[in-house]
Amino acid sequence: MKEIRDYVEQNKDRFLEELFELIRIPSVSALEDAKDDMYKTAKHIAASLLKAGADMAEVKETVGWPVVFAQKLVDPSLPTVLVYGHYDVQPAEPLELWDSPPFEPEVRDGKIYARGADDDKGQMFMHVKAFELMNQTNSLACNVKFMIEGEEEVGSPSLKQFCKENKEMLAADVILISDTTMIAQDIPSITVGLRGLSYMEIELTGPNRDLHSGLYGGAVANPANLLAKMIASLSDENNHITIPGFYDDVLEVSEDERKEMAKAPFSLEDYKKALDIDEVVGEKGFSTNERTGIRPSLDVNGIWSGYTGEGAKTVLPSKAFAKISMRLVPNQDSKKIDELFIEHMNRIAPEGTRVVAKSLHGGQGYVTPIDFPAYRAASRAIELSFGKKPIPVRSGGSIPIVADFEEVLGIKSILMGFGLDSDAIHSPNENYPLFNFYKGIETIPLFYRYFAEEMK
Amino acid sequence: MKEIRDYVEQNKDRFLEELFELIRIPSVSALEDAKDDMYKTAKHIAASLLKAGADMAEVKETVGWPVVFAQKLVDPSLPTVLVYGHYDVQPAEPLELWDSPPFEPEVRDGKIYARGADDDKGQMFMHVKAFELMNQTNSLACNVKFMIEGEEEVGSPSLKQFCKENKEMLAADVILISDTTMIAQDIPSITVGLRGLSYMEIELTGPNRDLHSGLYGGAVANPANLLAKMIASLSDENNHITIPGFYDDVLEVSEDERKEMAKAPFSLEDYKKALDIDEVVGEKGFSTNERTGIRPSLDVNGIWSGYTGEGAKTVLPSKAFAKISMRLVPNQDSKKIDELFIEHMNRIAPEGTRVVAKSLHGGQGYVTPIDFPAYRAASRAIELSFGKKPIPVRSGGSIPIVADFEEVLGIKSILMGFGLDSDAIHSPNENYPLFNFYKGIETIPLFYRYFAEEMK
Repeated sequence: MKEIRDYVEQNKDRFLEELFELIRIPSVSALEDAKDDMYKTAKHIAASLLKAGADMAEVKETVGWPVVFAQKLVDPSLPTVLVYGHYDVQPAEPLELWDSPPFEPEVRDGKIYARGADDDKGQMFMHVKAFELMNQTNSLACNVKFMIEGEEEVGSPSLKQFCKENKEMLAADVILISDTTMIAQDIPSITVGLRGLSYMEIELTGPNRDLHSGLYGGAVANPANLLAKMIASLSDENNHITIPGFYDDVLEVSEDERKEMAKAPFSLEDYKKALDIDEVVGEKGFSTNERTGIRPSLDVNGIWSGYTGEGAKTVLPSKAFAKISMRLVPNQDSKKIDELFIEHMNRIAPEGTRVVAKSLHGGQGYVTPIDFPAYRAASRAIELSFGKKPIPVRSGGSIPIVADFEEVLGIKSILMGFGLDSDAIHSPNENYPLFNFYKGIETIPLFYRYFAEEMK
Repeated sequence: MKEIRDYVEQNKDRFLEELFELIRIPSVSALEDAKDDMYKTAKHIAASLLKAGADMAEVKETVGWPVVFAQKLVDPSLPTVLVYGHYDVQPAEPLELWDSPPFEPEVRDGKIYARGADDDKGQMFMHVKAFELMNQTNSLACNVKFMIEGEEEVGSPSLKQFCKENKEMLAADVILISDTTMIAQDIPSITVGLRGLSYMEIELTGPNRDLHSGLYGGAVANPANLLAKMIASLSDENNHITIPGFYDDVLEVSEDERKEMAKAPFSLEDYKKALDIDEVVGEKGFSTNERTGIRPSLDVNGIWSGYTGEGAKTVLPSKAFAKISMRLVPNQDSKKIDELFIEHMNRIAPEGTRVVAKSLHGGQGYVTPIDFPAYRAASRAIELSFGKKPIPVRSGGSIPIVADFEEVLGIKSILMGFGLDSDAIHSPNENYPLFNFYKGIETIPLFYRYFAEEMK
């Protein structure tokens, strides 16, 4: 442990500067014209991995953005860890809400501020630096492979196919992922559940052109008013989702399990204060953590119609649009939910309008067992580096590809994330505490050591 | 009549080119940085009026965009006509839906295509050219004043004050306005009713920043979902508006009057076909023309929240916005409706959110008597030029300043509009048929002649 801490201490400024170099490339996968930046980022990571000690590192083409693959095979008798992460980031908009430019990282109050500071450049790069550390200190206890993709923020559309085509290359005993949070710096936790996702877009059309709202208002279906009605009808007064069949496959969690979950430290007052809200709002009969951990949800992620500029324009819009995503719990099938949603939208489209609903992306939920070697190794590693045994928690987020990994590669994943809820991922002023960044780099080599032991 | 037709025929190309010059200046009053173009337009019109024969023409400052005032006083014993119009236009967005650039007018299939082609540059400029015609043919039968403002599309915020400060200068026997439509080229009509307007903007705030919709979805009030619920609740299953007190001051129109109105030619099939809709939708118990003519309405003119770019962003937005306007019928007070709306929004703001509702602009409705000299003069003028007696109709649109004119100046207005519903005002591909443009220039001198007669 001392050797690890010393190495991190001696190299911490360089580690940070190297992360900054990576963050400065704006690899926003949702943008169609991001090609140059996406390839630049992928090549940058491949070069970092070679420098850190990989035998080989390659930027591999897919039908979408490329995947970085690298490996160092020490000894066939040792277990193999496949590190998964992603080099793409969310769009940085709304830009005006950032206190510093999103792609010019800077440290304020002990935190790195930038798009990707946590999700996932910061967390992924800890693995690159931990890998360097193990190589430099001759302590690499496992064979290592890296698969760093560029499409996670748009639902990993190419990665499943990539896995199918490269099963042998990717063979491993566990997939190690740092793309989740822990409860707090002094309350470490390991994510054992992820929600699935159905992300939809709706286009509602009324009249064939924008109309004058005086001449036509009151006589013609207004798609903005009516899209609001459609959205409003998707949940009832108990915040239950009303799409027929939506809850059919939801696994109810037992009272005992819920009691166990409720033991995780959580302050509703702090939660409300951090978000500046008077009340939390969610499905009746469930706690805040249950609402995100074991229950599905439906959120409007974007809505737009008509005139949205300054001042007043008296237009009755021709079209209204919304992006709506549903978070799903294990056993709910994302494809089936897509279909239920599309059917329902067509069923409730009001008179005088036409609706087109389509899926933008999706993926299945996932539950990690806590009785397998990788969980035990992660738990022991965190206990040693943080001085506290981590708590298993279910996250509300989604990493759709995790379920695919198990299906296609037959490999389970361990979600050893070092982020915090306050890191504002996907939001303006995304940040990542230096404490978590360096603590992650310390913890990862311990995982390798304990995983090798557990697999013996 | 022959003299008028000959003059128009001989000068038609020049009239059109002069209108085009006016249209090419993009005088969008809603834009704060439009100053140069607004003044340029105002000066252009003042110069046109001087050239057409005015004794004086001036660009007069207001607290907002300037007003063009001009006059020619022939003889104090003659009646005085005050021509009102506006030189500002609606924003041209969405630009991608225009078939030709909005501020580069062109004629296709006998129609002028451009922003402002009809509303109101095209209609207002007919008055400038008719004034030239009367001067050139020595047939000016009345004293004439022009008041052409630059803020009509944003609710005429400065004009009422301008009228208060210039009552003497503006003294007249009637205000003549061409800023409305007729039923068809072969079914002339005169607008005798206008709706009032309350134009509001709502800002709904949930959490203090955009959140990750996975980590928080289901547990925190989403202002986009909830703004949809608020909007949905503003009308019931009969398309009645549910704001308490909203209908209190609505004057019910008698069965006899409704029967009379129902005689105006109207084809529901053509109406639906022109808008490419299967069904019309509106308040139960009223016909399409009644829904816009004698009943108030509520329309979302714009809504926006969260991520509206390409692809998927899993954000739970911090804020959601809507622009909502209500068209009011005579006797409904715009200020009172503003207050009812704001109170109601505060009442229905859901738990976990904060709402701010404010008025962007508004104005009162108006009903023109059909038994006064100006109506008779307009009716006779149109009957002569179109060969058919015009039908009195109530429009769904609003010209809020008309009620103010009567209140402040004590002068009634006559709405002799030459537009068509198909002119797509406020929409992409706004247009104005050459037929209507030239027919307007022919009709206006007849109005002056008959108005002088009626006033004798």
